[in-house]
Amino acid sequence: MGYPEPMTTRDAAAALDADDPLAPFRDLFDLRGGVYLAGNSLGPPPRAVRAAVERLVGETWPGELVGGWTQDGWIDLPAVLGDRIGRLVGASEGQTVVADSTSVNLFKVLAAALALRPERTEVVTEAGNFPTDVYIAGGLARQTGRHRLTVVDDGGDVASAIGPDTAVVALSHVGFRDGRLLDLPGVTAAAHAAGALAVWDLSHSAGVVPVALDGAGVDFAVGCTYKYLNGGPGAPAFLYVARRHQGDAAQPLSGWMGHARPFALELGYDPAPGIGRMLTGTPPVVALAVLEAGLDVALRGDIEAVRRKSLALSELLIALVEERCAGLGVSLVSPRQPERRGSQVCFRHAHAYPVVRALIERGVVGDFREPDVLRFGLAPLLLRYVDVWDAAEALHDVLATGAWDRPELKVRRRVT
Amino acid sequence: MGYPEPMTTRDAAAALDADDPLAPFRDLFDLRGGVYLAGNSLGPPPRAVRAAVERLVGETWPGELVGGWTQDGWIDLPAVLGDRIGRLVGASEGQTVVADSTSVNLFKVLAAALALRPERTEVVTEAGNFPTDVYIAGGLARQTGRHRLTVVDDGGDVASAIGPDTAVVALSHVGFRDGRLLDLPGVTAAAHAAGALAVWDLSHSAGVVPVALDGAGVDFAVGCTYKYLNGGPGAPAFLYVARRHQGDAAQPLSGWMGHARPFALELGYDPAPGIGRMLTGTPPVVALAVLEAGLDVALRGDIEAVRRKSLALSELLIALVEERCAGLGVSLVSPRQPERRGSQVCFRHAHAYPVVRALIERGVVGDFREPDVLRFGLAPLLLRYVDVWDAAEALHDVLATGAWDRPELKVRRRVT
Repeated sequence: MGYPEPMTTRDAAAALDADDPLAPFRDLFDLRGGVYLAGNSLGPPPRAVRAAVERLVGETWPGELVGGWTQDGWIDLPAVLGDRIGRLVGASEGQTVVADSTSVNLFKVLAAALALRPERTEVVTEAGNFPTDVYIAGGLARQTGRHRLTVVDDGGDVASAIGPDTAVVALSHVGFRDGRLLDLPGVTAAAHAAGALAVWDLSHSAGVVPVALDGAGVDFAVGCTYKYLNGGPGAPAFLYVARRHQGDAAQPLSGWMGHARPFALELGYDPAPGIGRMLTGTPPVVALAVLEAGLDVALRGDIEAVRRKSLALSELLIALVEERCAGLGVSLVSPRQPERRGSQVCFRHAHAYPVVRALIERGVVGDFREPDVLRFGLAPLLLRYVDVWDAAEALHDVLATGAWDRPELKVRRRVT
Repeated sequence: MGYPEPMTTRDAAAALDADDPLAPFRDLFDLRGGVYLAGNSLGPPPRAVRAAVERLVGETWPGELVGGWTQDGWIDLPAVLGDRIGRLVGASEGQTVVADSTSVNLFKVLAAALALRPERTEVVTEAGNFPTDVYIAGGLARQTGRHRLTVVDDGGDVASAIGPDTAVVALSHVGFRDGRLLDLPGVTAAAHAAGALAVWDLSHSAGVVPVALDGAGVDFAVGCTYKYLNGGPGAPAFLYVARRHQGDAAQPLSGWMGHARPFALELGYDPAPGIGRMLTGTPPVVALAVLEAGLDVALRGDIEAVRRKSLALSELLIALVEERCAGLGVSLVSPRQPERRGSQVCFRHAHAYPVVRALIERGVVGDFREPDVLRFGLAPLLLRYVDVWDAAEALHDVLATGAWDRPELKVRRRVT
C-alpha cells in the first residue's frame, strides 16, 4: 500500500479528495461544518435517520400500535440488524444479534464462555482494554466467586499470559486510548492452543477495520454501534456467538426474548435453539429504527476501501502533525506501522486537555483521554483529506500561538 | 367510591365523558381511531414525541455531536428521568434511574438484594409473576449455584411461603394475566418481618395505580416504561433502590456508567456512591428523548384521579360485558373487587384467540393471553367511557353472531 507523502498545500489534499471513490458518502451525513474527528466516540447522523424515526413515531407506532411487533417486524429487528452487522465483521447469518449495551452483552458472552470451561478459573485481559470491559469481567468474577481476572500490562504480551487455567481471553480489538490494533487471529489462535476461548470487543473496529470473526475462529464478540455504525448516542449494541457454541451457550440474563417461545409465557425457561437465547428484554424499537438507517450507510461502503482510506487519512495526519508541529511538544502515541493501528491517531501533549478545548473552538472536534492524550478518530465515510489538513493546521496554530493556555480551557468538564 | 351503574345507552356513557376531568388528556395522544384496550401492552405515542425526537436527531445530535453528552445533558438523563418516574411511584429523589430493560434491571436488583442477605438462599415468587421475571430469577440462581427459587401457586399465599431461609420476595405488583393487584405494603411487611427483602415489578402499575415505594418500605423495584408511561416499543426501563441500601448495594453488571468517575477511565471499578452504581452501559439517548416526552404526559395526570377513572372504566366494562354478553360463554377472570385490580379487566372465553382477532377487525384492540384469556387494558388518560361502551357492544356482536368462528382468525400469529 502506498500512503501519500507529507503535504505542503491544501490543494494537494483537495486533489486526493477529487480522486476519492468514497467521497460521495460524505453527503449522506447531516454535517454542520467543522472537522469532526470524534466519530470514533459518536458518529454523526446519516440524513436518512430523520425519515426513519419519523416513520416509526409518526406512522407505525401510532398506526399499528401493539400490532407493530408482527406487522412491522419489530420483533425480528435484533436478528435482522444483527445479521447486517455480521456482514461487516465477517460473521455468517444467525450468529449476531443487536441488543442491550456493549457492557451488558459482554457480561452475557463472558458468562456463557466461562460456563463452557467449567474447570478453569481465569479471565485474561489487558490494561489497554476499555475500562467498562474490565469492570464487567471483574463484576462477573466477583459474582461467581470462583474466577479471577489477570490484567496484562498495556501493550504487554497477552499470548504468553494464557495458561492452563485460563478459561477466557477478553480483549478490545482496537485500544481506545492509543488506537493500537491487536492481532485478533493470532491471539485467538493462542487462546485456542491453550484450550481457552476468545472474546473480542469490536467497538472501535466494526465498520472501519476488516474483521473476520468466522475466519479467525473467534468464539464470542461484542461491540457498540454508535461509533462507525452511526446508530446514535447510546445506540443498542451487538453480540456474536460462533454457531458451534450456540447449543451449549448458557447465559444468566435469561429474559423472555431469549425463550424458545417468548409469547407462550410459560413458567419455565427453555432457551431458544440458536443465537436468540442471548436476548433478554423487549427490543428497543425506536433505537433500532435509528440504527437501521445509520447502519445502512456503513453497509454501503466497501470495507476494504474504507480501510484503505482510513489508513491514508491516518498517515496524512501523522505526517502533517509531525511536520507542522515539530518542536511543539506533540509526540505520537499510536503505533507508527499502519497495519498495527485501528482508525484513530493519538498524540501525547502535556496540556492535552486545554489543547483539545482550543481545537474545538476552532471547529476541530477531537477527544481528550486521560491523562495527556489527544485522540483523533478518522471516519473514512465522512472525512475528507482537506479536513485532515485543516485539523493539522489548527493544531499547529493552537500550539504555536499558545492559544490553549487560558484558564477557562483548563477547567474540566465531565465529558469531552 | 361510587361506580356507575350498568348503562343501557351510549349517551349515558357520553355524559360521563362530558363530566370527566381527565378528558382533555386524550388530545395529547396521536390516536388514529378505534378503541385501544392494549395500552397495558404498548401505550400509544403522545403527540409531543415527534417534536422531541426530531429535536434530537435533527438538531442536537448533528449540532452538538459528542458534545451533547454535556451540553445537552444526555449524561444526566438516566437520573433526571428516574426522578420523574419516582414521583409516580412514591420514591423521593436519588433512588430511581432509567436504564436497560426491565429484565436486565431485575437481574441487577435481585443480585444486589441477594448479596445483602448472604446467609440466605431462597427467592420466593409466584406463578402469576410475569414469566421474564421468573426466568431472570432462575438465571441468577443457576449462576450463583447457591440459590433456589420457590414459586408459589398463582394466587397463592405468598406471605406464608416466606421463611427463615428466604432472602428475597420478588413479585409483580399487578398480574399480567388476570390484572390482580397484589398487596404491596402487606407482602413487603411480611418479607421484612421474616428478615427478607422485597423486590417489586411495577410494569403494570407505574402511572396508573398509586404506588408508595418509600412509604411501604420497599427495598428494590423495577418497571417498564412502554405501557402507561408512553415510552414507545421497547423503551428503557427503570429501577429503584431504597436509599438505605445504596451504600451496600453491589450489582454484577458493573459497567462504566456505574463508576464513581466514569470518564476518568480508571482500570479499577469504584462504584458511584448512590443510585448511580446501578447503571451499566452508555445511556440510550434517542430512546430517552422519546421517553421524556411520553413521560411528561403521564406526569401531568393526578395519579389519584387516574386511579378513580381507571376503576370507573373497569367497573363499567365488567358491568356491560356481564349484562350484554350473558350466556355467551364469557366469565370474569380478574378480581371482582375493584380494590384488588390493577387497570386491566380479563375475561375467559373458550375461543379467546379468534375472539380477540374478530374484535381487532372491528377496531377494538385487546390482547389475548394463553390459554383462554381476553385482556383489556384501561389507560385512563386516553380512553373514554364511550370507548368502553363500544368495546362491550363489539364483544357482544362478535359472540352473538359467531363472527369469531372463521378459520383464518384461528391461525396463530406469533404476537397478538
